[in-house]
Amino acid sequence: MDGIQTIDGGVTAAKGFAAAAAAAGLKYEGRTDMALIYSDAPCHTAGVFTSNVVKAAPVLWDRERVAKKQDTRAVIVNSGIANACTGKEGLDCCQGTADAAAAALHIQPEEVLIGSTGVIAKKMPMDKLRAGIDQLAAAKEYTKEAGLFAAKAIMTTDTAPKQAAVQFDLNGHVVTVGGMSKGSGMIHPNMCTMLAFITTDLAISQPLLQEALQENVQDTFNMISVDGDTSTNDTLMVLANAQAGNAEICRKDEGYALFCEALLQVNTSLARQMAADGEGATALFTARIEHADTKEHARILARSVISSNLSKAAIFGHDANWGRFLCALGYAGVDFDPSDVDIYIEGNDMRLQLCKGGMATAYSEEKATEILSAPEVRVVADMHMGDAEAEAWGCDLSYDYVKINADYRS
Amino acid sequence: MDGIQTIDGGVTAAKGFAAAAAAAGLKYEGRTDMALIYSDAPCHTAGVFTSNVVKAAPVLWDRERVAKKQDTRAVIVNSGIANACTGKEGLDCCQGTADAAAAALHIQPEEVLIGSTGVIAKKMPMDKLRAGIDQLAAAKEYTKEAGLFAAKAIMTTDTAPKQAAVQFDLNGHVVTVGGMSKGSGMIHPNMCTMLAFITTDLAISQPLLQEALQENVQDTFNMISVDGDTSTNDTLMVLANAQAGNAEICRKDEGYALFCEALLQVNTSLARQMAADGEGATALFTARIEHADTKEHARILARSVISSNLSKAAIFGHDANWGRFLCALGYAGVDFDPSDVDIYIEGNDMRLQLCKGGMATAYSEEKATEILSAPEVRVVADMHMGDAEAEAWGCDLSYDYVKINADYRS
Repeated sequence: MDGIQTIDGGVTAAKGFAAAAAAAGLKYEGRTDMALIYSDAPCHTAGVFTSNVVKAAPVLWDRERVAKKQDTRAVIVNSGIANACTGKEGLDCCQGTADAAAAALHIQPEEVLIGSTGVIAKKMPMDKLRAGIDQLAAAKEYTKEAGLFAAKAIMTTDTAPKQAAVQFDLNGHVVTVGGMSKGSGMIHPNMCTMLAFITTDLAISQPLLQEALQENVQDTFNMISVDGDTSTNDTLMVLANAQAGNAEICRKDEGYALFCEALLQVNTSLARQMAADGEGATALFTARIEHADTKEHARILARSVISSNLSKAAIFGHDANWGRFLCALGYAGVDFDPSDVDIYIEGNDMRLQLCKGGMATAYSEEKATEILSAPEVRVVADMHMGDAEAEAWGCDLSYDYVKINADYRS
Repeated sequence: MDGIQTIDGGVTAAKGFAAAAAAAGLKYEGRTDMALIYSDAPCHTAGVFTSNVVKAAPVLWDRERVAKKQDTRAVIVNSGIANACTGKEGLDCCQGTADAAAAALHIQPEEVLIGSTGVIAKKMPMDKLRAGIDQLAAAKEYTKEAGLFAAKAIMTTDTAPKQAAVQFDLNGHVVTVGGMSKGSGMIHPNMCTMLAFITTDLAISQPLLQEALQENVQDTFNMISVDGDTSTNDTLMVLANAQAGNAEICRKDEGYALFCEALLQVNTSLARQMAADGEGATALFTARIEHADTKEHARILARSVISSNLSKAAIFGHDANWGRFLCALGYAGVDFDPSDVDIYIEGNDMRLQLCKGGMATAYSEEKATEILSAPEVRVVADMHMGDAEAEAWGCDLSYDYVKINADYRS
C-alpha cells in the first residue's frame, strides 16, 4: 500500500471495533436514537471538548476520563436529549449510564464514554436509557453495516449519516482510521459543536494521541461553522486499541506523521460533510484564504467569511455580492490593506475573478450565477501578504434554517 | 422645565438646523433616496465610525473632518450606493459630492459631511448625485416635516423612519438634542453598523462632544445586533451649532452631565428602533444582564444572547428554549458558574422564571408562549455575581431576513 487510501466504512473499519444502534424512544418514534461503539481491547483515548462555560454532563464525564488518561472500551451515545443544564441529576445520569453499560458489556464504568445531543435542559428518562443500553449490548457487531447504523442513530437534524475511513501501511502492518460524526445545528468553531468519534487500531501512546488530535482540530472541526452558536455538548474523541500490530508510536517519527495525515483526511472529510449538511443548507460554502501573513490570520479570515450571515444568504440567493465577502474579511479582526485583495469564486469546475485590488472586475453576472449554483461554492481571497493559507467550511443560510430552529422542540 | 423631556421631531428639532429629501434615482424609483442636514452656523462635530478594516470612502472622508476637529455645516446622505470597495474613484466621488454641496449651499467643501449606504462595490453615478444635491439645497426647510422627510430618505430595507428628540433647560436656555438613524441589516456592535446623525443647539467644546459620544456609544449603538455583520459604512455623528445661547461647556460640569443624559435618551431610542426594525424582524429582542461582576462582562453577555442565531430563531418561533439563552451566555467568553444563573422572560407585562440555578423550573409552556408572542420580548439573566448590569437589543431571525438578504441587489 502506498500512502493513505480512502476506504468505505466508519467506526467499525479498524480492527476490533464493533458498533450497534437501538431505538430507545428517547425522542424519535420509529427510528434509532442510541448508538454504541465497542472495542475488544482497551483503548488509549484522546478528546477535545466544547469551550462553552456551560458544559453538558457527558462532556464533564468524558473530560475526566481523558484528563486521567484512562483507557476506555465503549462509547454510549444518545441523540434525543443533550443532558445539558441538568445540574447534579445530569451527572448522576452519566454515572447511571456508565454503570448500566458496564454491566451489559462486562467492562468497568470508568471504561465507558458518553455522548449526548438534543434538547437542552430536559431530564433524561433513565429507564428508557437503560433498556436502550441492553439492546445495544445485545446487537453489537463488527460489520461495516453496524458502523453505518450507529452513524445514522446519532443524527438529529442531519439529513445524512457522516462517515469516513482511511488505511495506510506502517512497517508491514495495515493501520485503519475511521470515524463518524453528527451535526448539524449549533455548529461553530472552537471547538467543533458536534459529536465525532474516531476509532483506530494503531498502537500509539496516549499523550501523542492527544497531541495529534489537538493539532488536527485546528484545521478540521474548528474550521467549520453553520450558525455561530458554540454548543454545550461539543465532543470529539479518538479511541486507539492497538490491534494493528505495529510497535507503539512513542515519538514523532514517520509513523506519527502518517497517522496525523490519516487523521487529517478523516476529520476533513467529516467536517466537510457536517458543513454541507448544515441545517437548511442547499450548498457547501468553502472559503479559502491564500497568501495571508500568518496561518492563524488565514484561519480567522476564512472562518469570518463562512460565518457571515450576509455572505451565507448571498450564497443561498446565488448572488455575486462579493462586497459582503470583503466586508466579512474586514471585520474579522485581522489587519490588511483592502486595496491588495483579489476575490474569486469557484464552482461547477469554473473560476471567476470578481474583485481585483479591492474593486469590482467587469465579470459576467450570468457566469457568476452559474458558479454560485454549484453544490459546493468556493470563495477564494488572495491577500497578497505572505505564504499562509487556510480553508473553512460552512453552508448557505436558507429559509429552512429558520424553519428548523424556530420550533425545534415541537 | 424639569429634567429631560421627550419631544416630537428629529434632526430639525434643535435651533438652526434644516433638512431636505430628494429623489435622485440612485436606487429606488418613486421614492426619495438622498437627504440633507444643514446648519445656519458652523457646528463642532464628533463622530465614531466602523471598526471594519474595509472602510467605505465616506467614512474615510468624515473621519478626517473629525480628526482635524473641523467645524461642519452640512451632511449629504444617499441610501442607494454604499460607495465602499470603490478605491480611489470612491474618494474622488466624496470630493465631488463635497464640492457640489459647497457650491449649492454656499459653504466650504471641508464643511460637508457625507453618509452612504446601500450596495457595496457599485460605482456612484456622479451626475445623478449632483442633480440630487441641487434639489436638496433648493428644498431645505427648518420644519419638523423636513426632518421626517430626511429620516425617510435615508431608509434602505428599513420599514419605518427612526427619529428621536429631547429637550432640557440649561441655566435658562432651552437645549434640544435630536437625531435620525437607519438600519436595518449589517447591524452588529462595534460599532453600530448604521447611519445615525444627531443635531444639537448646545454650545460645547469639540473634545468634550467627542468624549460624550464615545462613552455614550458603549451603551447604545454598540449594544444592538441584527445579524452579526459589521458594515463598512457605520457612521454616527453629532453636530453641535451653539445656537441655544448657553455658555460653551468646556468641562465636565452639571451641564455636561445633563447633555450626556439627553444624548443617552436619544441614542437609546434610536438604537432600540433600529433593532426592532431589523431585517425581517417580528419582535424586538432585549437581553438584560443583572448582577454581573463587571459592566464590560454584563455588556458582553447581553450582546451574546441577542446575537445568537438559535436564540433569535427561538424568539421567532415563540419557543421557550431557554437552554439556548444559557448556551449563548456560556460561549460569550466570560467566566461564570452556570449553576448560579437564573433566567426570566418578560413581555406583554408578564414575567416568568424559566431557569433557576442553571436548571429548568416547572414553568407553564402556555404562559411562556404568550410572553414570547409580545412585540418586545425581554430575556433577563441574573448572574448572582456582583452589581453590574447591561441591556442589549436585537430582533428575532425570521424567514424574511433570509428572503431580504438572499438577493438584495435585484
